[in-house]
Amino acid sequence: MTAAPSPALVCPIPLSDYPEVTMAHGGGGRLMHDLIDRLFVASFAPGAAGPRADSAILAPHGGELAFTTDSYVVQPLEFPGGDIARLAVFGTCNDLAVCGAEPRHLAVAMVLEEGLSVATLWRLCRSLADAAARAGVAVVTGDTKVVERGRGDGLYITSSGIGVRAHGLRPGAAQVRPGDAILVSGDIGRHGIAVLAAREDLGLRTDIVSDLAPLWPAVAALHAAGVELHWMRDATRGGLATVLVELAEATGLGVRIDEALMPITGAVAAACELFGFDPLYVANEGCMALVVPQTQVEAALGVLRALPGHAEAAAIGGVVPAGDAPVIARGAAGGERVLRMLSGEQLPRIC
Amino acid sequence: MTAAPSPALVCPIPLSDYPEVTMAHGGGGRLMHDLIDRLFVASFAPGAAGPRADSAILAPHGGELAFTTDSYVVQPLEFPGGDIARLAVFGTCNDLAVCGAEPRHLAVAMVLEEGLSVATLWRLCRSLADAAARAGVAVVTGDTKVVERGRGDGLYITSSGIGVRAHGLRPGAAQVRPGDAILVSGDIGRHGIAVLAAREDLGLRTDIVSDLAPLWPAVAALHAAGVELHWMRDATRGGLATVLVELAEATGLGVRIDEALMPITGAVAAACELFGFDPLYVANEGCMALVVPQTQVEAALGVLRALPGHAEAAAIGGVVPAGDAPVIARGAAGGERVLRMLSGEQLPRIC
Repeated sequence: MTAAPSPALVCPIPLSDYPEVTMAHGGGGRLMHDLIDRLFVASFAPGAAGPRADSAILAPHGGELAFTTDSYVVQPLEFPGGDIARLAVFGTCNDLAVCGAEPRHLAVAMVLEEGLSVATLWRLCRSLADAAARAGVAVVTGDTKVVERGRGDGLYITSSGIGVRAHGLRPGAAQVRPGDAILVSGDIGRHGIAVLAAREDLGLRTDIVSDLAPLWPAVAALHAAGVELHWMRDATRGGLATVLVELAEATGLGVRIDEALMPITGAVAAACELFGFDPLYVANEGCMALVVPQTQVEAALGVLRALPGHAEAAAIGGVVPAGDAPVIARGAAGGERVLRMLSGEQLPRIC
Repeated sequence: MTAAPSPALVCPIPLSDYPEVTMAHGGGGRLMHDLIDRLFVASFAPGAAGPRADSAILAPHGGELAFTTDSYVVQPLEFPGGDIARLAVFGTCNDLAVCGAEPRHLAVAMVLEEGLSVATLWRLCRSLADAAARAGVAVVTGDTKVVERGRGDGLYITSSGIGVRAHGLRPGAAQVRPGDAILVSGDIGRHGIAVLAAREDLGLRTDIVSDLAPLWPAVAALHAAGVELHWMRDATRGGLATVLVELAEATGLGVRIDEALMPITGAVAAACELFGFDPLYVANEGCMALVVPQTQVEAALGVLRALPGHAEAAAIGGVVPAGDAPVIARGAAGGERVLRMLSGEQLPRIC
């Protein structure tokens, strides 16, 4: 006997009728309403009753809110450790988390390319719903557009999030002081290399999986443990180096890191060497840089390393008074180099 | 003597260096930061001081909020009466307004196609800033991605908005009663025909200009005048007919309209006849359907017609008990027809 497939996993739009997204799915008529009701509402808000409205109404909340938006254009749509839908949820939630806000509400807008497989879209909808549940956010509103074949790339997702600022948690450049320590919440470079490896044309064989994950649990645990979070930033496009340059620019202070302390797996280091990438510039999607008081480094690392996904958290350097170069990295062999923002691009469409 | 051009109107990125958007403008490095600082921040938040953060922080507000998102993929990017940037502002603000919320904060995410003219992007940024000022919203956060040539269509914009619910204004299907009147806030069909005419391949010559405009001033004026706004919906993709079907479906009641009462310009009617379009299904971007008590029709029309852009407001029908067909339109010649949602598409990429 084989188990019957779970009814919830059967695409609710008959694939024999509509194997692919058509322009009519974006026309505002019956087909679009069907797509929204049967794929999106069924996935994201299965209990939603009553009429669809143009906006979601959010209950009153007395505190400060954080508001963010990101478009996701990653290619391929699915990669080891994630897909564009999970990225759209966790990426946007992480932008809230590093501002000290607990992610609550998500708005999801999709630009579908004519010809996108409806089965793929359904799989990504399920993934998005699963990621939202894991991140503790509700998908409260959305939008769907369809563009002609050759005017998109399967699917672009823009997700916008609203979070609620945690009491007493106000990370920002103004809190950063010379002498503060700089931590990373995990090993670096996995997302960029995993996506790169998933591009068939590169022929890279590797077991590297994206680090894609929500960061709010780590922020909440650190805050609950009394760690003063002076500054946080998730190290996505442009990698850790770009985030450190942003830290230096925002504070007017200097940043010194020690590359020998940088957590990085052997596989990522090898892949970076093979392709000539500097891992400090490779994108992450579940790793952040944090600035905390020097006296709280051990406490912070203790909290982080006890959490799933943050076992490799490490102290990598510190904030210093402004000097000649804003960001200096000391290499494993003892030499120093100045880190700047990427002047061009390294890995396009990584998120 | 000729006047010197206003410095504010000169593109702040040297067009000789970067006449077109390149993949590197989306890479997360220095070029992307330059684009954001010199084009976007300069246009949208010229007074913004301090560091860019991943999220905007919104001051506490005790009331209910409305939250919405829409992607805009209109083609061409510029059309008579507007452009994709103005559409992204007013369209999203209108989704808040018809839910009874005053638009306040906007998040703007752009997917740029490699090769987009930077001069065009700058013009659209100026237009977006101007539209935001007119709509009374602040652009508080954003995102930029770049996709390869042939994976986009110049520019897609996703704008997400947060609005504050006006005191005592709770439009919704539950408020609608049989006997209520249905109004439109202006003449219909102009946006769809204006965009259609702007597509060079169609060779349609017309002076029709999109009705693109913010609807909040009309909602606020009606509410201030004591008009009970039972239900509102802006009649965008799918046109007025689709909105009326949504009204019938959401309330479980019937809708009857009289086409002889429908405000429509001669030029729009002629263009629709020429192309075989039913104007009830053509998109609008500054026109909404409203349900108000029958006793307040004259008051509502008085308020609307005194406002710029709403001189053609009209009562077009009413809500009736559920009958055989949810929505019935009585034609000018006296015949009746059932209005349904579009089964396919009429005008792709109209918004």
